[in-house]
Amino acid sequence: MEKRKKIVVVGGSAAGPKAAAKARRIDSNAEVIMLQKNAELSMASCGYPYYVGGFFDNRDMLLSNPAGITRDPVYFKNAKDIDARVNTEVTAVDKNRHMVFFRNTITGETGEMTYDKLIIATGATPLMPPIPGIELEGITTLQSLQDADFLRKIGDDGEVKKAVIVGGGLIGVETSEALQLADIEITIIELVPQLLTFLDWELAKLVENHVRSKGANVITDNGVAAFLGKDGKLTAVKLRNGTESPCELAVVAIGVRPNVKLARDIGLTIGATGGIEVNAYMQTSDPDIYAVGDCVESVNRLTGKKVFAPYGDLANLQGRVAGENAVLGNCVTFPGTIQTGICKVFDYAAGSTGLSEFTAKRLEYPDIITVINASLDKPGFMGGKLLVTKLVADRKTGKILGAQCVGPGNVAKQIAQWSMAIQGNLSVEDIVNADLPYAPPYSLAIDHCIATAHVMQNKMKGRMTGISSMDVHQKLANNEKPFLLDVREPGEYRQMRLGVGETLIPVGALRSRLHELPQDKNIEIICFCQVALRGYEAALVLKHNGWKNVKVMEGGVASWPFPREK
Amino acid sequence: MEKRKKIVVVGGSAAGPKAAAKARRIDSNAEVIMLQKNAELSMASCGYPYYVGGFFDNRDMLLSNPAGITRDPVYFKNAKDIDARVNTEVTAVDKNRHMVFFRNTITGETGEMTYDKLIIATGATPLMPPIPGIELEGITTLQSLQDADFLRKIGDDGEVKKAVIVGGGLIGVETSEALQLADIEITIIELVPQLLTFLDWELAKLVENHVRSKGANVITDNGVAAFLGKDGKLTAVKLRNGTESPCELAVVAIGVRPNVKLARDIGLTIGATGGIEVNAYMQTSDPDIYAVGDCVESVNRLTGKKVFAPYGDLANLQGRVAGENAVLGNCVTFPGTIQTGICKVFDYAAGSTGLSEFTAKRLEYPDIITVINASLDKPGFMGGKLLVTKLVADRKTGKILGAQCVGPGNVAKQIAQWSMAIQGNLSVEDIVNADLPYAPPYSLAIDHCIATAHVMQNKMKGRMTGISSMDVHQKLANNEKPFLLDVREPGEYRQMRLGVGETLIPVGALRSRLHELPQDKNIEIICFCQVALRGYEAALVLKHNGWKNVKVMEGGVASWPFPREK
Repeated sequence: MEKRKKIVVVGGSAAGPKAAAKARRIDSNAEVIMLQKNAELSMASCGYPYYVGGFFDNRDMLLSNPAGITRDPVYFKNAKDIDARVNTEVTAVDKNRHMVFFRNTITGETGEMTYDKLIIATGATPLMPPIPGIELEGITTLQSLQDADFLRKIGDDGEVKKAVIVGGGLIGVETSEALQLADIEITIIELVPQLLTFLDWELAKLVENHVRSKGANVITDNGVAAFLGKDGKLTAVKLRNGTESPCELAVVAIGVRPNVKLARDIGLTIGATGGIEVNAYMQTSDPDIYAVGDCVESVNRLTGKKVFAPYGDLANLQGRVAGENAVLGNCVTFPGTIQTGICKVFDYAAGSTGLSEFTAKRLEYPDIITVINASLDKPGFMGGKLLVTKLVADRKTGKILGAQCVGPGNVAKQIAQWSMAIQGNLSVEDIVNADLPYAPPYSLAIDHCIATAHVMQNKMKGRMTGISSMDVHQKLANNEKPFLLDVREPGEYRQMRLGVGETLIPVGALRSRLHELPQDKNIEIICFCQVALRGYEAALVLKHNGWKNVKVMEGGVASWPFPREK
Repeated sequence: MEKRKKIVVVGGSAAGPKAAAKARRIDSNAEVIMLQKNAELSMASCGYPYYVGGFFDNRDMLLSNPAGITRDPVYFKNAKDIDARVNTEVTAVDKNRHMVFFRNTITGETGEMTYDKLIIATGATPLMPPIPGIELEGITTLQSLQDADFLRKIGDDGEVKKAVIVGGGLIGVETSEALQLADIEITIIELVPQLLTFLDWELAKLVENHVRSKGANVITDNGVAAFLGKDGKLTAVKLRNGTESPCELAVVAIGVRPNVKLARDIGLTIGATGGIEVNAYMQTSDPDIYAVGDCVESVNRLTGKKVFAPYGDLANLQGRVAGENAVLGNCVTFPGTIQTGICKVFDYAAGSTGLSEFTAKRLEYPDIITVINASLDKPGFMGGKLLVTKLVADRKTGKILGAQCVGPGNVAKQIAQWSMAIQGNLSVEDIVNADLPYAPPYSLAIDHCIATAHVMQNKMKGRMTGISSMDVHQKLANNEKPFLLDVREPGEYRQMRLGVGETLIPVGALRSRLHELPQDKNIEIICFCQVALRGYEAALVLKHNGWKNVKVMEGGVASWPFPREK
C-alpha cells in the first residue's frame, strides 16, 4: 500500500482550515493535521465588528457552518476527517528532519510529529504603538474572538461613554460604527491626513464627512503620544499635539504585521514587505513548506511588485492552492492580488480595486489619467442613492488601473464590476460600451461605471478639461479668482451649495445669459453641477461661444469634500 | 463660414434623445432636430411597471431629469439646444433628396425638411395575438405612458379583481408583480413550458415557484385561444386547452417587434431577425442614415450572429455611437451585445448574461459544460439570502460562455460580475482565484461566483460527477432506483426535504455509517445537501470507500425545482 502523505497545517483560522480541507478532498488517503494555537477554529473574524455592533446576537454563528454545526475538532474529524488540535502552539520546526514541535497552551504538554508537507498559516498580529500607558486596562484591539467578546460586553453593559479608536483604517472605521451603535461617543485618531488610505484623499474625505455626520469625532494628521490612566485604568489619550481626549476605552487598530516568527525561526525567506516569501504555488523557500494567508506577501498583479495584502478572501483562495499543491505536487498557482477591498462605514460603503492615484504616482507610473464621477446607483424614482467613483487609467492605452467608489449607493457592485474589468485587462473604451444588467431596481440605464468611463473618454479625447475639487479649493486658497459657475437649478442651490463665490446660472438659461459671464474670453471659468453632465454641457456652450479657458469641476457639488455654505 | 450639419433624429424615447444630445455635444454648430410621434420625450419606459406597482407615486419622475425638470421641448431647446418636436410623425423619407416628411398628429399639419444625416430610432411595437376578442375593452399592453396611466388607475381604483397576463417574459412578470401589489389576482399564461426564456428551464422553474408562492397563478405550455367578453368588455380568456379563466383585465406581453415600417419604406435593408441591419457604426444600408435602439438588430459578441436585443441600456449606448458618427463621420463603433438582462420578480431577481445552455445547444456549440451552484450572497449572520447560479463554459478552454442567476440574494451583482468576466474573455480558471471586494455586509469570503467556478473546476477536473435535478427527477419518473443520499443535518431535513425516497445520513456521520449504504459498490448513489459542498464531500468519502458510481446533485435541495414533500 502506498504511504499516506502527512500534511501538517499550522494555524486554524481561515487559510489553514481551507488548505487542510482542500488537501483532504484532493487526497482521501492523506493524513491531515491542523494545529491551532487558539481555542477556536475557523472563526469568521471579519464578522467580529458586526457582532460587536449588534447586527446579530448569536455569537455561535461566527463559529458554525451554515447548517449550524460548530466548527470544533469533532466537526473537523467527523465531517472532514481532519485531525484538528486546538490550544496547540507550534514551538519549533526542524525542516531537515521534517519535524514539528508543539505545546498545549493549557496543559503545557509538549509533543512532536513528522510531516511530509507543512503549511504555515500563522496569520497576522495587531501592531501596538510603543507608547506610555499601553498596558492600561481599557485598551484593546479587535483581532480575536476574545476581543470581540470584550467589546460586545462593553456595548451591552452601556457603562462606557467615550471611546477612542486609534487608527482610521478599515478595522478602525468598522469598529467605530460598531461602538457608535452602542451609544458610545467615538473619536477616531489617525496619524496620516485621511481615513482609509486605500482611497485617495478626496474620496476619503467624503467618508470622513459622513462619519462626522453620524456624530463621531475624527482627528487626522495626529497621533497618540500616551495613554493616560488612573488606578491602572485608561482615562484619556494624549495626542502628539498635546491635547487630551478623555475616554474609558481605546481600540488600537493601526494595522497588522504578518506573524512570521515561526517562519523566521525555521529559516524561511522573509520578503521586504515583512511577509513570508512564497512563489506562485504558495511555496516558501523550503520546498516542503507552504505558507498562506495573512502571514505571507503577495504579488500585485498590476505592478508585479510584492505587497502585504491581508484580505480574508485571498487567504481562503491561497489555502485552496497550497492544499492542492501539498498533496499533488506543485500544479496550481495563485495569480496574486489587485488589492480589492471594501468596508461598510455607517450608511456608506467605501471600496477600491487596483491602484489609487496616490499609489500609481508613488510607483512612478508615467502617464496616468484620473476622473471623478458621481451619480445615483439607480433611478431617483426607485430610491437611487449616490455613488462617487474615482477612476485611474493609463492615458495612452486607456487600460484601467484602478477604481475607488464611496457613498450610500451600491458600492459593492461597482467595485465588483471594476475588479472584474481589471482582471479582464479591459480599457476605458471597453467599458464605454459595456453590456451590464439593467433594470430600474438595480441600475441606471447607463450604469454609473459606464457613465464614469464616458466622462473619462471625454477627458481622454480632449473634449472636457476636468479640474478636481482639490485644485479648485487650492486656487481659492491661493486667492486666484477663477469664475465659478454653478449651472444647477435654483431649488438645488437653495438646498445645498458651496458658497465660495460661485455664480448660479442654470444650464437651461445659460445660452440666453452669456452676458452675465466675464467678457474676457481668456479668463478661467470653472463649471459644475450636482454631479457631472450639466457642468460638461455648460462648458461646451461656453467654448462654443468663444471662452477659451473653461474647465469642469469633476464630481460636482455632490463630491465636494470641503465645508459647504449649505 | 462652414455649413452647419443638419442632423434629424426620428424618435424621442431613449436612443433618439441620446443620439441627438451626443451629436449636439460633439458639434456645437450642428442643427439637431428630433421628431417624436408621441406627446412625451425621453420617457423612462423601463420604469412603467414600478409606477403601476406603486413603488413611487410621482408620475413626473418618469419624464424629468434628476433635477426635476421635465424633459419637454422647452427643456431640450434650452438645456441641449435641440429642436425637439412632439406629436410629430415622420410619414416618409426621400433618401435621394435627403428629405424627411412629417405630420402633426394633433393638427394634421404636414411639413418637410432636409437632412445631412438621419438617425432612425423608431423603437419597437408590442406584438398582439391575432385572436378573437382582441378588440375588447380591458385588454392592454404595457408599452406606452398611456398604458401605464391606465394600469395605475386600475390599481388605484381597486375595482378589477382578476387579471390575466398573456406572456411570461420580462414585461409579463414585472407587470404581474405590479398588479399583484394592487391586490389583483393574477394569472400568467405562457405559451412555452417556462417563464423568462432567457433562463434555462430549471432556473425559470425556481422563479415560477416563487411567483406561485406569492399567490399568482402560472399556466405554462398553453396559449390564449380567444378573449371572451360581454357588452364589449373583457370577461375571460379562453385557453387553447379549452379552459376559461375569468378576468376583467388582460395585459398582453408576448414580446415586441422592431418598428421598421419607415425603414422598409425608405428601402433600407432589414435583417433576418426583423430589425434594421446596421454595421458597427450603427449605419444602415444608406450611408447617410443611422439607426439605433429597439428597431435595429445587434451582433451577439459571443456568437457573431445577429440578434434582436431590445434592451434600454444598449439603446442609450447605441445612441451615443450614432450621434458621434453622424456629426464626425464614422469614427466610433458599437461592439454588440452579450445579451445581459435582469428583472425583478417579487422578492427574487432573475438575470442572465451570455449564453444559456439551451441557446448554446441550439447554436450547436460543440462541447459545453454546465454547473448549478447555490449559496448565500453573504454570511448567514449578516442576513445572507440565497443565490442559485447556472454557469455555462467551454469544456476545453474553460472560457465562460454564460451565467444565469436567480433568487432573493444580490443577483444584480452576480450578473454584473459575470458579464464583465465574459467581456474580459475570462475563463473558469480566472474566476477560481478572482480578487473581488469582500466584507461580510457584501459577500461571502469566497464569493458565490468564485464558489461556482470552484464547483465547475471540480467537474472539469473530473473530481466531481454532477447530475442535474432534472436528470434525477427523470430517473425517478423512469422508475430507476438510484440510492439518494441526503447528507444534511436532521434539523434541516425536518424543515425542508424532497421526500423522494432519499436516505438521511449527515456528512459528519457518514464515515461511521457506511454500512447503511447499499453494499453493491456499482450501484448509483446520488449525494446532495442544502446547496453544494457537503454533497461533494460525501461523494468523495464514498468514492474513497470503493463506491464507483457516485454523483452529486447540483444545487442541492435549495435548487430543486420540483414539488417537495416539505
